[in-house]
Amino acid sequence: MFEKVTLIGIGLIGSSLSHIMRREKLAKTIAVSSRSQETLDRAKELGLGDSYHLDAAEAVRDADLVIVCTPVGACEAVAKTISSSLKDGAIVTDVGSVKASVIKQMKPHLPKAVHFVPGHPVAGTEYSGPDSGFATLFENRWCILTPEESTDENAVSALSDFWVKCGSMVEVMQANHHDLVLAITSHLPHLIAYNIVGTADDLATDSKSEVIKFSASGFRDFTRLAASDPTMWRDVALHNKDAILETLGRFSEDLSALQRAIRRGDGEKLFDLFTRTRSIRKSVIEMGQDVAAPNFGRADGSEE
Amino acid sequence: MFEKVTLIGIGLIGSSLSHIMRREKLAKTIAVSSRSQETLDRAKELGLGDSYHLDAAEAVRDADLVIVCTPVGACEAVAKTISSSLKDGAIVTDVGSVKASVIKQMKPHLPKAVHFVPGHPVAGTEYSGPDSGFATLFENRWCILTPEESTDENAVSALSDFWVKCGSMVEVMQANHHDLVLAITSHLPHLIAYNIVGTADDLATDSKSEVIKFSASGFRDFTRLAASDPTMWRDVALHNKDAILETLGRFSEDLSALQRAIRRGDGEKLFDLFTRTRSIRKSVIEMGQDVAAPNFGRADGSEE
Repeated sequence: MFEKVTLIGIGLIGSSLSHIMRREKLAKTIAVSSRSQETLDRAKELGLGDSYHLDAAEAVRDADLVIVCTPVGACEAVAKTISSSLKDGAIVTDVGSVKASVIKQMKPHLPKAVHFVPGHPVAGTEYSGPDSGFATLFENRWCILTPEESTDENAVSALSDFWVKCGSMVEVMQANHHDLVLAITSHLPHLIAYNIVGTADDLATDSKSEVIKFSASGFRDFTRLAASDPTMWRDVALHNKDAILETLGRFSEDLSALQRAIRRGDGEKLFDLFTRTRSIRKSVIEMGQDVAAPNFGRADGSEE
Repeated sequence: MFEKVTLIGIGLIGSSLSHIMRREKLAKTIAVSSRSQETLDRAKELGLGDSYHLDAAEAVRDADLVIVCTPVGACEAVAKTISSSLKDGAIVTDVGSVKASVIKQMKPHLPKAVHFVPGHPVAGTEYSGPDSGFATLFENRWCILTPEESTDENAVSALSDFWVKCGSMVEVMQANHHDLVLAITSHLPHLIAYNIVGTADDLATDSKSEVIKFSASGFRDFTRLAASDPTMWRDVALHNKDAILETLGRFSEDLSALQRAIRRGDGEKLFDLFTRTRSIRKSVIEMGQDVAAPNFGRADGSEE
């Protein structure tokens, strides 16, 4: 599909892209770039690329498609580094969880002759690094593209085709809208998970070990999200600040109302909240975004 | 192991107990009691008992072991109903997520000649009702018993043996301590999950359907806990009020600090929090309380 694809950053998303591109023959050659020699060596051992580069500028030479798979905070530096080495007509995209900031960071540095189509595959696991990728990560998951109106249509549809071949469903929307939606679906849940696990981490040693011991009662679900890559999430929190603060504000207001209902013993209010949340779970399953099996179908004692 | 066991309430826990008691031959006969004729009919169809009773007093007659598997708010009424029909020397226990309140509700009504050993199997799924049970629910999970010091040791050890035969590991602790630990490991996570899904439910219809669509980015994990039984959780919130409010208070303080770090762009603080939470996940997996597979090993596109 592409002659040469360059992956800048080879963590969970980059390495998963390598696997699926190999399987679906989406690239004749894959150039892999990382700022870390260690990561690059590991990528080489895993055979994730056809060439390996510490220098991103070298990696993007002659590439038809450049996919920036770094934490969002690194996007400006990457754009500056690669800008003068990009081929005319190349498509440049990214995979960041925040879009407005990535556009702000990258666009001013990219030459007019390349097509910049920001993207976000809404997929992931709690693992990171070049070993964590797998070819089916994007299957049945959405990929959101946020091109500006003036962007070349052929570039947008070529990138869209690429993601469909990776197994994704593609949706195009405005960057700001993306950032608001993801603040609720992704950023808030991760921050809440980090926060609740942090609250437990602050407990005295004895209590902490009890929390771990009895974590199957609910807490363990949060520990998974709270094990996600710290650099990635630091950057998301810093780069989608406004939408996240707005969303955290709503959540906190609702939490105060819940707290008040508990304090006042308002069983009716509690029952109402605990009932209406069920229909959202049902929709999530119906839309194929989660499994219906109890406890996520975990292969432990709680599974049938 | 027991001649006759009575299950009062036949939801997820009651029906799971029936399955494991059959498999492990822990009871010669099982009496099932429910206040709802419909539930009782369904339990009969599923063959969960040897006799079925709308009247709990009738169900407990001659039982050696009585297990109250109702929402914790119903415990006082159950104790009043059964008290005069209990056999001398019978063991009475429960499975509620709150222990001090259950003791307060039940103890005054139980005759001196029975052994009251409150219990809590720390196991569950998001499903409820007589169809949701399965024999392996308690496998590799803890069961906490909270007898008073004066309780007959033989009764405690008989109940402990029973849970071990159900697949559980047993821990004995004080009721108040149980309620504090579970407030953190179970009650807080569920309330937070209900709250975040409630916040999303309040969004306009368009935004709500986008949240569902892109829920694989984190939100879907919360929808599972927030699909748990509303009656059960209303009762937990009402009956462990003090420990829950204390825990919610800590969580809220920490959330304010996190919010402040985001507002001030304090990347170092964020990175620190997002890093130290990882070790708790590691301990949870090491202690066998969750699976290490990415995304809980969900059998969907995100699994390898």
